[in-house]
Amino acid sequence: MNDRTKFLLDESRMPKHWYNIMADLPVPPAPVLHPGTMQPVGPDDLAPLFPMELILQEVSTEREIEIPEPVREVFRLWRPSPLFRAHRLEKALGTPAKIYYKYEGVSPAGSHKPNTAVPQAWYNAQAGIRKLTTETGAGQWGSSLAFAGALFGIDVTVYQVRVSYDQKPYRRALMETYGAKCLPSPSDTTNSGRAILAQNPNHPGSLGIAISEAVEIAATHDDTKYSLGSVLNHVLMHQTIIGQEAMLQLEMAGDDPDVIVGCTGGGSNFAGICFPFIGQQLRGGRKRRIVAVEPAACPSLTRGKFAYDFGDTAHLTPLTKMHTLGSTFTPPGFHAGGLRYHGMAPLVSHLKELNLIEATAYHQNACFEAGVLFARAEGIVPAPEANHAVKGAIVEALRCKAEGKAETILFNLCGHGHFDMTAYINYAAGKLTDQTYDEKELAMALAGLPSVPA
Amino acid sequence: MNDRTKFLLDESRMPKHWYNIMADLPVPPAPVLHPGTMQPVGPDDLAPLFPMELILQEVSTEREIEIPEPVREVFRLWRPSPLFRAHRLEKALGTPAKIYYKYEGVSPAGSHKPNTAVPQAWYNAQAGIRKLTTETGAGQWGSSLAFAGALFGIDVTVYQVRVSYDQKPYRRALMETYGAKCLPSPSDTTNSGRAILAQNPNHPGSLGIAISEAVEIAATHDDTKYSLGSVLNHVLMHQTIIGQEAMLQLEMAGDDPDVIVGCTGGGSNFAGICFPFIGQQLRGGRKRRIVAVEPAACPSLTRGKFAYDFGDTAHLTPLTKMHTLGSTFTPPGFHAGGLRYHGMAPLVSHLKELNLIEATAYHQNACFEAGVLFARAEGIVPAPEANHAVKGAIVEALRCKAEGKAETILFNLCGHGHFDMTAYINYAAGKLTDQTYDEKELAMALAGLPSVPA
Repeated sequence: MNDRTKFLLDESRMPKHWYNIMADLPVPPAPVLHPGTMQPVGPDDLAPLFPMELILQEVSTEREIEIPEPVREVFRLWRPSPLFRAHRLEKALGTPAKIYYKYEGVSPAGSHKPNTAVPQAWYNAQAGIRKLTTETGAGQWGSSLAFAGALFGIDVTVYQVRVSYDQKPYRRALMETYGAKCLPSPSDTTNSGRAILAQNPNHPGSLGIAISEAVEIAATHDDTKYSLGSVLNHVLMHQTIIGQEAMLQLEMAGDDPDVIVGCTGGGSNFAGICFPFIGQQLRGGRKRRIVAVEPAACPSLTRGKFAYDFGDTAHLTPLTKMHTLGSTFTPPGFHAGGLRYHGMAPLVSHLKELNLIEATAYHQNACFEAGVLFARAEGIVPAPEANHAVKGAIVEALRCKAEGKAETILFNLCGHGHFDMTAYINYAAGKLTDQTYDEKELAMALAGLPSVPA
Repeated sequence: MNDRTKFLLDESRMPKHWYNIMADLPVPPAPVLHPGTMQPVGPDDLAPLFPMELILQEVSTEREIEIPEPVREVFRLWRPSPLFRAHRLEKALGTPAKIYYKYEGVSPAGSHKPNTAVPQAWYNAQAGIRKLTTETGAGQWGSSLAFAGALFGIDVTVYQVRVSYDQKPYRRALMETYGAKCLPSPSDTTNSGRAILAQNPNHPGSLGIAISEAVEIAATHDDTKYSLGSVLNHVLMHQTIIGQEAMLQLEMAGDDPDVIVGCTGGGSNFAGICFPFIGQQLRGGRKRRIVAVEPAACPSLTRGKFAYDFGDTAHLTPLTKMHTLGSTFTPPGFHAGGLRYHGMAPLVSHLKELNLIEATAYHQNACFEAGVLFARAEGIVPAPEANHAVKGAIVEALRCKAEGKAETILFNLCGHGHFDMTAYINYAAGKLTDQTYDEKELAMALAGLPSVPA
């Protein structure tokens, strides 16, 4: 049979360092700006929000940063994660391409997010912090930080986008089972939230608003810090363990990827799988095609502007230069909640500008069609976010078929869909629509981007 | 830190044989009787329902039966499954006991059930069968057979207990995503179902009724066979890979269990973890305590009668001697749907009568309390069924604490609770009641047990 093959690393070969792509960039990314002064921020500016160890990681240019042993100890619960060769999917597609996928759904919270939640909680605990705030959309990130908080004795408060809070009670239940407190955002616990509720008491919320609320609490409480699940340099760096493991596992398989595919919302799982490979290239190694796949309804990389913007709606966060749809843009309510963010990680945006990565966008029905095909062939039901990567990999595999090329494709299956079965029910019932954003709203949001002194 | 330890077997050490406890029993179990003649059945009597290879396994007394390579090939997707030392749970309990758990939730369907679904589907496919029927309660088994059917090109029809079909759409969505057909039971597709609907069009269904429907379809269609997820000898044997792996992993850990705990509904995950250890004892090895934990609302082992009974409500199945609450008994609707069965696997019942195992029962609130404690300590949210094993293990650990004994406890964490978060929501909201059955109904069901010639 040999219908699929699993490549498992011995735990002793689990990477002991994160890979920091900052060390290998030909041009450094644009500086992060203070929202008040519009001048580059220094470490002290970020100190109300993050412990110093994470701030130093955020600005570090060291190529390797050691993963603390207590963090690796927790990682061993599910890492090294498996790499699979998808023989059955290849057969179903009739492609000469070889398809490999790295599976991050084996973590307790079911996605790649604990790769950064655990070190973030640990560094905070080491700094004596006992309270963390964060935001979450569908709940992948919130449940991961709740899990990590439970391990290190940190009280976690999660501001969950109200529409998800109301419609997706399962991930909320997971957060609460881990002992976290979960509030619908906008809430009446912050100035940012109250201001929005005053305008619209039934506001459905957005990630940008939830970030404002979580940041506000951390900034105004000495005993509380803030934790972000994507976008920031140190968060992306924490995910590079994915690509480093995949590199070792593909060596075991005697193979090397021609194309690497990941889905992008904030950019962290994509960075995790591809940064170590891009780093090889930047140090004189082989050039590979790297494809970011985003939702057509929230297409920051393919339709956004590369410009300075705020990370949140209330404009409490620093400004970063990134592909953005505008911080006031509200994407339509499609099912891949983890990809509904107006911006993109500055590092991912920077690589796009340097032509080191490509980007493409698909609507959700095409992604769910790919996900169901994958589930029947490989047995794992992907998260709606991960379906975008599956779709991207299938498109590449079918291109190989059309071109008669036996390329090697690697993609990151960043999480399972166990908490997202409502989306599959709607897809099977033909009830999913391929929503698109309002072009006028996008134009307005882009017109409203902050002006920044040159 | 070393807060927990994972013991992983190399795939080359994954067991290549199932262990058949029939070879080592001091007394054989009572014969299975034909429902028409009340005489012992022969292999041909079972041929309308099962392929001959599985019938031969059902009656085999060979100690080891080879796991076919194509089945092991699929198993490598998630096997060998990990064994964890629960250091953090031990600390939370303040017990001198060592607690180990074998984790079966790593399978694509999220429980131990694929361990038998995959070989059952494979043997059917080898026999040329392209259609299988089965029943499911909450859906652990139905989704596992749907997964296995997708792998081997078999159309799977699942009769799902109507109350679960209506209230738990997520597992149904999983079955349908794998391509299976799912019908609410009682249905109008069978004589058994129509007879019940004629009496009560709103009947909530039961496992016994769903079995009748699935068996009827297989018995009346030449191209269709039936598949059962627990109770039968060959199903229990397929699960022994769990205990065999655990034995090798505990050797790696330099440890040996004093107490082994599993939850019991039909008996298969319990048999999987403990039969290999009981077999050692029967061949002259060490005696260990083996504890079956069942729901207090459906207590076949602790309150049932050891007698011949039917496996289903319509009395289409053969009769087996087992601990039973009577085939007309309807357990209350608690959340561990996988444990809501009136009977117990004949082999597990036989071992109970031989005093080779103990049995105990707990109400669901106590089990969920244990499950939440476990989730916060170990990061994995157990299925409601598995919470019974967690509770049993915690009781043993606290006994060790009271007695000052550093015993080694092993339990089987048979599945995760990702599709059962409604139960956790209700538990957290204080809405779970510790239902109990009606004593009069139990007495009536027991009084109605079939009389069998001596």
